[in-house]
Amino acid sequence: MYPLEKLRVSVRKPQILKGFRDYTPAQMRLRLHVIGIFRQVFERHGFEPVDTPALEYLEILTGKAGENEKLMYHFHDQGDRDVGLRYDLTVPLARYFAMHQQDSVLPFKRYHIAPVWRAEKPQRGRFREFWQCDADIVGSSSMLADAEAVSVLTDALDAVNLKRAVVSINHRRLLEAMARLAGVPESYAPTVFRAIDKLDKIGPDGVRRDLVATGVDEAAANRVVELVTRTGSNDELLDAAAADLEGIAGGIEAVTELRELAGYIDSLNVRPGSWKIDLSLARGIDYYTGPVFEARVDEPKVGSVAGAGRYDELVGTFLGRAVPATGMSLGLERILEVIQEFELVPLRASVADLFVAAFPDTLRENARIAHELRLSGLNTDLSMIANRGLGDQMKYAARRGIPFAIIAGTDEVQREVALIRNLATTEQREVDIASLAQEAKLTISG
Amino acid sequence: MYPLEKLRVSVRKPQILKGFRDYTPAQMRLRLHVIGIFRQVFERHGFEPVDTPALEYLEILTGKAGENEKLMYHFHDQGDRDVGLRYDLTVPLARYFAMHQQDSVLPFKRYHIAPVWRAEKPQRGRFREFWQCDADIVGSSSMLADAEAVSVLTDALDAVNLKRAVVSINHRRLLEAMARLAGVPESYAPTVFRAIDKLDKIGPDGVRRDLVATGVDEAAANRVVELVTRTGSNDELLDAAAADLEGIAGGIEAVTELRELAGYIDSLNVRPGSWKIDLSLARGIDYYTGPVFEARVDEPKVGSVAGAGRYDELVGTFLGRAVPATGMSLGLERILEVIQEFELVPLRASVADLFVAAFPDTLRENARIAHELRLSGLNTDLSMIANRGLGDQMKYAARRGIPFAIIAGTDEVQREVALIRNLATTEQREVDIASLAQEAKLTISG
Repeated sequence: MYPLEKLRVSVRKPQILKGFRDYTPAQMRLRLHVIGIFRQVFERHGFEPVDTPALEYLEILTGKAGENEKLMYHFHDQGDRDVGLRYDLTVPLARYFAMHQQDSVLPFKRYHIAPVWRAEKPQRGRFREFWQCDADIVGSSSMLADAEAVSVLTDALDAVNLKRAVVSINHRRLLEAMARLAGVPESYAPTVFRAIDKLDKIGPDGVRRDLVATGVDEAAANRVVELVTRTGSNDELLDAAAADLEGIAGGIEAVTELRELAGYIDSLNVRPGSWKIDLSLARGIDYYTGPVFEARVDEPKVGSVAGAGRYDELVGTFLGRAVPATGMSLGLERILEVIQEFELVPLRASVADLFVAAFPDTLRENARIAHELRLSGLNTDLSMIANRGLGDQMKYAARRGIPFAIIAGTDEVQREVALIRNLATTEQREVDIASLAQEAKLTISG
Repeated sequence: MYPLEKLRVSVRKPQILKGFRDYTPAQMRLRLHVIGIFRQVFERHGFEPVDTPALEYLEILTGKAGENEKLMYHFHDQGDRDVGLRYDLTVPLARYFAMHQQDSVLPFKRYHIAPVWRAEKPQRGRFREFWQCDADIVGSSSMLADAEAVSVLTDALDAVNLKRAVVSINHRRLLEAMARLAGVPESYAPTVFRAIDKLDKIGPDGVRRDLVATGVDEAAANRVVELVTRTGSNDELLDAAAADLEGIAGGIEAVTELRELAGYIDSLNVRPGSWKIDLSLARGIDYYTGPVFEARVDEPKVGSVAGAGRYDELVGTFLGRAVPATGMSLGLERILEVIQEFELVPLRASVADLFVAAFPDTLRENARIAHELRLSGLNTDLSMIANRGLGDQMKYAARRGIPFAIIAGTDEVQREVALIRNLATTEQREVDIASLAQEAKLTISG
């Protein structure tokens, strides 16, 4: 054993970086299951999968908004290049699209499910490594593309039984027009969006205070809040907005687009009640140019679980021309939290359907049984603790959450039978080895 | 549109880091399909999924072999911690196991499919970001666990029709004993492993030269090469080794373990001919302590596609005690290369089964049709180019590789029918809207 000695390193404390997580088998079974459901929904809508590198040139990543750089993991690599870990999946889409234009048929519908990294202060429910599930349509300025984004969003949430989520829909140009109507100077628009975006957290008074504090005059601040907090049916809200915005640049066009979008959403049969026009929806990110959407769960107070909108000026960044694009992003981590809390998705306690006990004298026969069960499509764990008693082996299987055990010791092997034991009830029955796979399937399907 | 102006950044050249890749839809469909098959095989064998962070404390990652540090992507994070991107999935397993001991039932069978990063010189077929697919069993020193690793390896390769791969099996202690028998001083053992590991590339003469060059005397070098290049059936090789190694420390024990392993492999019904004893298999990595395996494809000359072995001293690194472990790792990138080259896995040209054409006058009806088809389980792309003619729309669908189109213009909508068109042959037939989903399914399964 001499070559190993040099490996005996000093014992180091096992630790994990703050804001990062291991996923245990129980957590991974749920994650993989939900990601599988999202993939299916995306593909059902004709979105194609892509992936991009975790590491990119820093210059590529910082394109969208230089201010993100301080939240990026970036460093000099061995070749002294400035590189960073991707911060989202939208900037990589823009870079991908610029490099693969010639092979991409337009409109290009792609989905991308992958981790991103942000050097943020970790908080409850906020991580430095988390997954995004994005589906976007590049190359169509039709409101049908936005309707498709809303439809894939609501279908994805429905598919994981998150039916309490409601999608709010608004339009960036409508908000801009309302700010104009209220008399807010143009240069304040980003301030207005950011203040309105906090409406849910700080209330109308808070938004008013925020606006005034940043220099908007009080009358204009009051008027903005009044305009965006109006309530009513979708049609009432759009009619009122159309009346108010007569003659305000961009206002009527935005209302027309929203009406068109609403029509397409109906045609795609998005469940009524699962979406609404909400004139106060701003979404903080600067790059949106048209409709914006956000799915929220308010009962219980989970907040935003998905969102996005149209961003016609980002994808073309590397091409020097506008390329229309719209899409949506599912917040996997928060969705998983809700699914777990409300047990929305039934999940097995183990990947294995069956545990095959093993004993020193029948070990090879036990292995053969496991092989046959696997061949018939059953997920089967073969005992690796043949040297321990049956009781210990049953305890192991039960702790792993495996529902049934197959037991064949010397006596059973001689008689060419095996026992199928329910590990929860300890009930068991004897079946012929020849029909074991079939009988086990019947038992499992209950 | 005023808030957007500040976003008009200068046009930057889109580029990707050397050694990193985008995956296009065609590449991703294959990757996801193959990863799905591997997951199924792992779960069929009762392995549970886990995941760990991409970033770890550098000190954790460098545990296994300090020399890897220069091949790691590492840097100081915003909190001035030394961190690195994971280099493999085995060191993270050791760290995970140390931190989750109390929730893990032993033996702990886990699989982990994830990217790893190495700052290596990129070459043909070698990347700086690539995926590993590992399945390991922690906490069992039984040869049954090693047989399970071989069985999951061969089943995984069989499942992607890579039946030309052959698994070579050897034992580290058998190699050590042979080096002793040949008269090589103990301190040279790692040198011997590294030299033998190159047998395939540099031939027996090359190995002899390498050994002599590093200080092994010529007679010993000749004897080592003679011992490890012996040919014969599995039983003949093990019998000869047993006879030679009588009285050499560790030799007989290793032969006994290999015989036991071979018996279990038979019981698990690993296809005969898909594995063999190969006394020259060394595998370069220092941490193996028992049986080692490697699956190779020699025709065509692809080389190693999977491998691993027993490593009883690594998982316990963070615990200060030995924890037995064995497992295997599938080389996803190379396996995908072979699958593509030989078209081993049939793959669709698009995620979508159907393309629904759209026209300005029937757009909402076309959207409704797409919704119904999706509801019935068909992957359906709805046209986002309703403003373009039918010919253009059919060209789009064909370029995306979608096999069938559904066409319903004003006339068809009035008559409550739709056309199903085969995009390859342009044949089409008319069916009632009411039975469209059913008819489309029949056509697709055609």
